[in-house]
Amino acid sequence: KGGKILILPGDHIGPEVVTEALKILDIIEEATGAKFERDFDLCGGASLDKHKDSVTEAVLKKSEEADAVFFGSAGGPEWGHSQPNPESGLLRIRKRLQVFANLRPCNFASKALIHRSPIKPEIITGVDFTIIRENCGGAYYGEKTEEKDYGCDPWEYSRPEIERVARVAGALAMQRDPPLPVWSVDKANVLASPRVWRRITHEVFGKEFPEVEIRDQLADSLAMLLITKPTAFNGLIVTDNTFGDILSDESGGLTGSLGLLPSASLAGAPAAEGGDSPVLGRNNAGGVVGLYEPVHGSAPDISGKGLANPVAQVLSLAMMLRYSFNMHREAEVVERAIAKVLDSKDDGGLEVRTGDLGGTAGTREMSEAIQGEVRRL
Amino acid sequence: KGGKILILPGDHIGPEVVTEALKILDIIEEATGAKFERDFDLCGGASLDKHKDSVTEAVLKKSEEADAVFFGSAGGPEWGHSQPNPESGLLRIRKRLQVFANLRPCNFASKALIHRSPIKPEIITGVDFTIIRENCGGAYYGEKTEEKDYGCDPWEYSRPEIERVARVAGALAMQRDPPLPVWSVDKANVLASPRVWRRITHEVFGKEFPEVEIRDQLADSLAMLLITKPTAFNGLIVTDNTFGDILSDESGGLTGSLGLLPSASLAGAPAAEGGDSPVLGRNNAGGVVGLYEPVHGSAPDISGKGLANPVAQVLSLAMMLRYSFNMHREAEVVERAIAKVLDSKDDGGLEVRTGDLGGTAGTREMSEAIQGEVRRL
Ligand SMILES: CC(C)[C@H](C(=O)O)[C@@H](O)C(=O)O
Ligand SMILES: CC(C)[C@H](C(=O)O)[C@@H](O)C(=O)O
Repeated sequence: KGGKILILPGDHIGPEVVTEALKILDIIEEATGAKFERDFDLCGGASLDKHKDSVTEAVLKKSEEADAVFFGSAGGPEWGHSQPNPESGLLRIRKRLQVFANLRPCNFASKALIHRSPIKPEIITGVDFTIIRENCGGAYYGEKTEEKDYGCDPWEYSRPEIERVARVAGALAMQRDPPLPVWSVDKANVLASPRVWRRITHEVFGKEFPEVEIRDQLADSLAMLLITKPTAFNGLIVTDNTFGDILSDESGGLTGSLGLLPSASLAGAPAAEGGDSPVLGRNNAGGVVGLYEPVHGSAPDISGKGLANPVAQVLSLAMMLRYSFNMHREAEVVERAIAKVLDSKDDGGLEVRTGDLGGTAGTREMSEAIQGEVRRL
Repeated sequence: KGGKILILPGDHIGPEVVTEALKILDIIEEATGAKFERDFDLCGGASLDKHKDSVTEAVLKKSEEADAVFFGSAGGPEWGHSQPNPESGLLRIRKRLQVFANLRPCNFASKALIHRSPIKPEIITGVDFTIIRENCGGAYYGEKTEEKDYGCDPWEYSRPEIERVARVAGALAMQRDPPLPVWSVDKANVLASPRVWRRITHEVFGKEFPEVEIRDQLADSLAMLLITKPTAFNGLIVTDNTFGDILSDESGGLTGSLGLLPSASLAGAPAAEGGDSPVLGRNNAGGVVGLYEPVHGSAPDISGKGLANPVAQVLSLAMMLRYSFNMHREAEVVERAIAKVLDSKDDGGLEVRTGDLGGTAGTREMSEAIQGEVRRL
């Protein structure tokens, strides 16, 4: 068990929270005998400073050789006007690894957090959906034109790009019994590429996942409905790069705890617990090639102070264990440990929470509480 | 005073709410002596049925000759697979009239509505921003490609398109003392056309509106912040067609009352009360050419039953009076009348509310209550 991880802590709070997350990995190695080879390198601003590029070819090569990439965060005001910008490093790794399916779950890591949502509890309680954002195509890639008086980003999709992400959605839906419902989100009433998206998605589901209920939803109206009826979308939402970018950040607002949101970018459909290994994007560990990162950014305002919430990074580690290393049980242990820590006050224990959750704990303290629970489970 | 209005009631609840809104216009004619020439025609599904097109060239011509276009709503399941679709009629009118600045206010029409928001009152109370969505360019127009296995929408902007909408934002900001703050929303960290957008917007503000505070905001992170800190954006938000489409629907979710949201699409910067007449997009009434429509759609599920909430359509009428006919005082009377009706229960009166607001009143009853208040004011 185990495998090869390329670790790119990135900038500002990135290294702080990555360090803590890796301590959880240590505990899992000890407890299970799994071995994780860890290689550290630069990406984002850190790479710009040293190599004058947001990511080097050497790092891109290494990322291809790893079973998974564990990413912190990139960017900060000090690279405000640099060309390329730090974020481009991340975009280039996503593209090189062809991690085309970006999974962003929206749920509460613990019930104690429900009351911290900006949304009323009677509306948000029970929310549990995952956005699957297409991550390697659309307007964010393609031949751009940038002139003094004109700019153009071709927003384009071709059949293979749509088919493969639809298949990930279908496969993930089928991992539940009954299958999860899937919403395919587009703007087919106005745009051409979303019309092609809609047609091909229906073809894939009709042929390959006839048991899965697939519904169309316009992106603009979803932006409204996620606020007024979020639980109506419990299940999976599959959508293109642009809509997915905006709607997944919006979903982060729903729970109100940016410091808690992990994400996984996958190169194929992951296996279910005990299921077959993936057809597309298989790594040497028998899992799927993946890039794991918190949804939050590098938070320059609190970096260097030991205040950052490590939970999103640790939850990203759990996703890595599950998808890239088929360690489903261990992933669950990590997730349960986090819920225990966050619920501890309601359960009569001590409250350990970082500032973003209204507490006074630091990064290390929060991390140690989680480590303690992981050891106990 | 007065002028020429082309009225396009459209489909389903469109004609129901337009009819009621026009009764308010009758009262204003009587009270002020203003004369409004009204021409009725077809757009959307109604036009498809009669002319096999979502809007005819004759109607487009008429729209150019009018001082304002008053639109209901277009679409419905019965035109599900028709080519062109009903919505395309609306897009073509927007383009023909060059109403490039789509104003969508996000605030509470009455304080009694605050508790109906899905967002907690301590977070949403006092929200008051207007999204200015670029309405004639970007990915929604331009040369599309739609093939069996490939689709492309060029997401493009050129200098004049960006300058004119930035000028509307600047002019509207300057109508307040102190000037309203403006957020320019883009995704300049990834996309080329938003980079050009950002640069040119800053040029326009720097040269022409040096007193206005202009800040950049990434579209994805705004989608989150609108939920967690909505009042932090009180002022104006100017953004491109795609981001504006999604973010303005999201804003509709914030207040939770889709039946209350009006919108105005303008061909230039409107005049302030008592201010100079507009330079760009001036109509024969001395106001600005505009298209006015509620944000809600045609609501086929409740059409024909007299249940639709007419408020968004009436508020759109108020915007028309203000921007296209320089009737600022009358616009305010209509807005105050609506607030009075919605607040009437809290003020010890009868509650008159349609179903979407938790009441039992029908379209006509709601409209009559508003008419009564307009008469009294
Ligand atoms: C940092 C940026 C390039 C990135 C994106 O747009 O994909 C981020 O917003 C995200 O959602 O992961
Ligand atoms: C109906 C549709 C064409 C339209 C748009 O996308 O502009 C609508 O969503 C809107 O926001 O007014």
